[in-house]
Amino acid sequence: MNGTGRIFRVSIFGESHGPALGAVLDGIPPGLPLAVEDFSADLARRRSGAPGTTPRVEADEPEILSGHFEGHCTGAPLCIVFRNGDVRSSDYERFKRVPRPGHADFTSSVRYRGYGDPRGSGHFSGRITAGLVAAGVVAKKLLPGALFSTRILEAGGTADIEAAIARAADDGDSIGALVELRVRGLEPGLGEPFFEAAESRIAANIYAVPAVRGVEFGDGFAAARMRGSEHNDPFIGADGRTAKNGAGGINGGITNGNELVIRVAVKPASTIAREQETLNFYSGAMEKLSGEGRHDSCIALRAMVALEAACAIALADLYLIAKTYTTERERK
Amino acid sequence: MNGTGRIFRVSIFGESHGPALGAVLDGIPPGLPLAVEDFSADLARRRSGAPGTTPRVEADEPEILSGHFEGHCTGAPLCIVFRNGDVRSSDYERFKRVPRPGHADFTSSVRYRGYGDPRGSGHFSGRITAGLVAAGVVAKKLLPGALFSTRILEAGGTADIEAAIARAADDGDSIGALVELRVRGLEPGLGEPFFEAAESRIAANIYAVPAVRGVEFGDGFAAARMRGSEHNDPFIGADGRTAKNGAGGINGGITNGNELVIRVAVKPASTIAREQETLNFYSGAMEKLSGEGRHDSCIALRAMVALEAACAIALADLYLIAKTYTTERERK
Amino acid sequence: MNGTGRIFRVSIFGESHGPALGAVLDGIPPGLPLAVEDFSADLARRRSGAPGTTPRVEADEPEILSGHFEGHCTGAPLCIVFRNGDVRSSDYERFKRVPRPGHADFTSSVRYRGYGDPRGSGHFSGRITAGLVAAGVVAKKLLPGALFSTRILEAGGTADIEAAIARAADDGDSIGALVELRVRGLEPGLGEPFFEAAESRIAANIYAVPAVRGVEFGDGFAAARMRGSEHNDPFIGADGRTAKNGAGGINGGITNGNELVIRVAVKPASTIAREQETLNFYSGAMEKLSGEGRHDSCIALRAMVALEAACAIALADLYLIAKTYTTERERK
Amino acid sequence: MNGTGRIFRVSIFGESHGPALGAVLDGIPPGLPLAVEDFSADLARRRSGAPGTTPRVEADEPEILSGHFEGHCTGAPLCIVFRNGDVRSSDYERFKRVPRPGHADFTSSVRYRGYGDPRGSGHFSGRITAGLVAAGVVAKKLLPGALFSTRILEAGGTADIEAAIARAADDGDSIGALVELRVRGLEPGLGEPFFEAAESRIAANIYAVPAVRGVEFGDGFAAARMRGSEHNDPFIGADGRTAKNGAGGINGGITNGNELVIRVAVKPASTIAREQETLNFYSGAMEKLSGEGRHDSCIALRAMVALEAACAIALADLYLIAKTYTTERERK
Repeated sequence: MNGTGRIFRVSIFGESHGPALGAVLDGIPPGLPLAVEDFSADLARRRSGAPGTTPRVEADEPEILSGHFEGHCTGAPLCIVFRNGDVRSSDYERFKRVPRPGHADFTSSVRYRGYGDPRGSGHFSGRITAGLVAAGVVAKKLLPGALFSTRILEAGGTADIEAAIARAADDGDSIGALVELRVRGLEPGLGEPFFEAAESRIAANIYAVPAVRGVEFGDGFAAARMRGSEHNDPFIGADGRTAKNGAGGINGGITNGNELVIRVAVKPASTIAREQETLNFYSGAMEKLSGEGRHDSCIALRAMVALEAACAIALADLYLIAKTYTTERERK
Repeated sequence: MNGTGRIFRVSIFGESHGPALGAVLDGIPPGLPLAVEDFSADLARRRSGAPGTTPRVEADEPEILSGHFEGHCTGAPLCIVFRNGDVRSSDYERFKRVPRPGHADFTSSVRYRGYGDPRGSGHFSGRITAGLVAAGVVAKKLLPGALFSTRILEAGGTADIEAAIARAADDGDSIGALVELRVRGLEPGLGEPFFEAAESRIAANIYAVPAVRGVEFGDGFAAARMRGSEHNDPFIGADGRTAKNGAGGINGGITNGNELVIRVAVKPASTIAREQETLNFYSGAMEKLSGEGRHDSCIALRAMVALEAACAIALADLYLIAKTYTTERERK
Repeated sequence: MNGTGRIFRVSIFGESHGPALGAVLDGIPPGLPLAVEDFSADLARRRSGAPGTTPRVEADEPEILSGHFEGHCTGAPLCIVFRNGDVRSSDYERFKRVPRPGHADFTSSVRYRGYGDPRGSGHFSGRITAGLVAAGVVAKKLLPGALFSTRILEAGGTADIEAAIARAADDGDSIGALVELRVRGLEPGLGEPFFEAAESRIAANIYAVPAVRGVEFGDGFAAARMRGSEHNDPFIGADGRTAKNGAGGINGGITNGNELVIRVAVKPASTIAREQETLNFYSGAMEKLSGEGRHDSCIALRAMVALEAACAIALADLYLIAKTYTTERERK
Repeated sequence: MNGTGRIFRVSIFGESHGPALGAVLDGIPPGLPLAVEDFSADLARRRSGAPGTTPRVEADEPEILSGHFEGHCTGAPLCIVFRNGDVRSSDYERFKRVPRPGHADFTSSVRYRGYGDPRGSGHFSGRITAGLVAAGVVAKKLLPGALFSTRILEAGGTADIEAAIARAADDGDSIGALVELRVRGLEPGLGEPFFEAAESRIAANIYAVPAVRGVEFGDGFAAARMRGSEHNDPFIGADGRTAKNGAGGINGGITNGNELVIRVAVKPASTIAREQETLNFYSGAMEKLSGEGRHDSCIALRAMVALEAACAIALADLYLIAKTYTTERERK
């Protein structure tokens, strides 16, 4: 299912080397101000070019096909597309015989019965996140007062991220990274127990982004090593403020008004210049494989904004759902 | 939203001290053999009584109200209920004034506008997982060949779990734990990119279980510290077997036929005997709070089976969805 | 799928001769006042006893299992169950061999692979509408100012309904009827184009009620014989009032504030005392069949309240969805 | 909600005078053969040009943006777009002041808070059905053996349809029509009680098509005037064949293998050349209104294929859902 959300419904489509990719956004409250330029900043964040990212430059010019009129979202579905430029697809047939380690070549062939578009990893390409990032821009606009900040805490196990990336690039290798997302100014009360707990919705969207291996909230895995007296977090303000925010802004699956704190483990990019061994499914023999061209040595750099978008999309839907149980009294 | 799933749809309901709780399961393929006794083993696993769990004994007798006839699921909704025994509700009114740290008292009052059933934590009680566990039993039956095993890797930061629990109990405290879920024998090809990646669906369900703070797959957070040459996992068998299974059984959001490996951080139980300080929302002053009665010192002991059920429920739905794209050729 | 709705989600379960049937209602805004007695009036309307209905008396005592506390809905799922009394199931095995004309015996055996509960028509029994009617009671409470009125316009082709029913009963036969639903006081703006047009949602729910053969809005099928100059309906009030209400209260899939007018064709009950011929699927020969016991001669009498509930359930969900696009400005 | 379907999920977007409109189709089983030319025949059926339709010619060239590779659907979302040509939007501002009778001008302004794209009726234009028709083409391919035939039974109350249309056109008026859809060769067992009865899903989709006022199955409204002995339909073949097919191919919400028979009341087009009176919402006075340009005098001519598509989309989803309860035994 390439769609998510009950009220703010985001559907993405597209492949890396097909004609275009994009997203359809349904359920936007009418009148939301939006300009094409609003997408620029976040799209730039997922674009390549910086150290640690592939030097191939994609234009990523969004075109709004529908749901937009005179500077506002109309309330009808907003369709945003990104045309793919003239791409030269490499010898992708090879990956059917020799599925790349860490890639979706093998699982895609099982799921899509061999009919998936294999060019440039097709629907599994990181490029698919352009639509997600565009949807995230709209999602953030739907969340009044919410401030997102996302950064890399460490890469390859060190906080000296630049050096780690440089070393990996020199070695023709890639490195993973730990990304932290924070959201301030979020209203309390978002989250729909039981199955749409705030963590459930956020984690589901984040895990949809390629290369994610772990998601934790607040104290996260450290909480597994704590005692209750240590992890418990006394309230200190009538607005729900707590002393340590070890819950990362969520109690019982519902936001508590404290800052949302999420950490995400992003694996190292699967494609590396260094030679790897893997199975040739046709010959049955192990075979050497090396990544041609130039690639991201730290995919987390570009994935950050996609993770942020994934989080915002979940929150925007929960925010709109929360409007449905506002009592008449409160609305006046 | 207290329901999840597109084909195998699980809806749960109930409160800790209300008349009953349970689950409605829709979309079960007709003819699935099922007896009331099939629930016993898993329900016993979530029951109290063992060291580290509350000594209050609940009967947890499931009653099948519908969708069942002559030893089989009929295909119509299966409704399973658990009557709550004669419970004596404590002075729950207090928790409106003095919301307990780590509990959902505060967020529940925001989300449910003060109308939530406060007795025994109401809909936020761990007891709600009885319905989840029952649904998990059916989910596992839907997955031919799948073998689930779940264990605690460490509690309070140590592998000597029994000792750690005993110490915490002695101190009137609780401890968190790291739980590992493994699923063998799962067919490859389960998972629905983009938004219903196998990790997305599994993590969403797991985060719905109270007390979860982190979820990781395969190498998990360790992957954030690795290089690609280290994390990448060469195929070594034409069935998709890989050398290290660092991806934890999933590539590109789709199961690859290797063992599923998931680790979950379970926080220490919020209710502890030791005195805590927190805000009295009415008086505006900090106040002492101590957990009366006896409580779980290691909630992970009883949560394990609920986490397993959460995982099985996600997989069962993905398994049934996968049937829809089986080609006619393959079906013959 | 035995559930419907995106925000106000109604799931029904149960069989005619199983232990119980009922409904789970999710997404109710917290604080909605509700007492068990509130169900009485509508449940009485679907009960048998009146001329034209089966004389078998069912108690239909609803029990609220969850989501209810101190006279209010809590916002957590409301589960309502009806225990089935001591029922003596007839020789239902026969209907596998000789599926009754007009009944679901044959299609049920295909859909449920022969595993369906056949006793008293199982999940296909009209009795399943008890849960629907209960859900309708809550739905109507969610719609402030809406007034429902439902009546039979004609039965067996005549407006002298009592006489028509009496004649049919005398002949051991049943008759169909034309039911009209009207809803006054509904706010304009309800309906979610494209696929959740108000007519789409209402018709879908109404067609879920057994025995419905046709649904029309406003001028309905008569509009197919009209000219535009005749069917078009000029606005005459700034509140959206129109001159003739030929659209039945809906334009472009969205309520326009005029009275909602829906007519439903209810077929004659399939079970009749008169002898019928049908195929014995085992012997391959035609066989005589006659309805034993006493049955509804005009099922529409009892279906009316279920149709009304079906309509209310659709409208309540659309009403709650409409809250999500209320702008901040409007909410203040 | 502009999407429908649980497995075969169709989302439409676009406006009459915006850059483009189209549909995204998710859940297509991989490997379905598809060529752009496959859309031609059905798109031609909804195009204008024939007597009774507007002479404005639209190109309606579909472009496949994603989910398609080397002549097959890949299984990833198929996005189909239609560019809108150079359209000259008329003085649409007027319709805010003077909403046209029968149109969605008024309800759109309520639902979309005045932000809807008003040009050429925007998202409410019949042109939106281009995406629906394209989705219908794919849906029909998903239904092996199903044969759709759709025709107008009468227009303006007479079977001499051509004459009726000519007369209406001469008078600057429009006429409604009765459309019949038939589907042969559909397998029995499609339909998901309770809320996704075959009629529920089909009627919901059909009512999403603009201008529909009534939907009936089999004997339809005539059944309301019948007796059971007359309407009941004995089985005459072990494949489920019945004597009269008065149920229109559906019993208990599930297809019975007989021909599906659906009749749809299509209202006369709202825009007519003849002068009409309606309210000026700003001045508060009644005002004359006449349709400029040239318009459809019998909108049913072009709506037919959209109704057929709406029906096919519902059936395709039910068909794929039905695969999920096929037992292992049956699949071998």
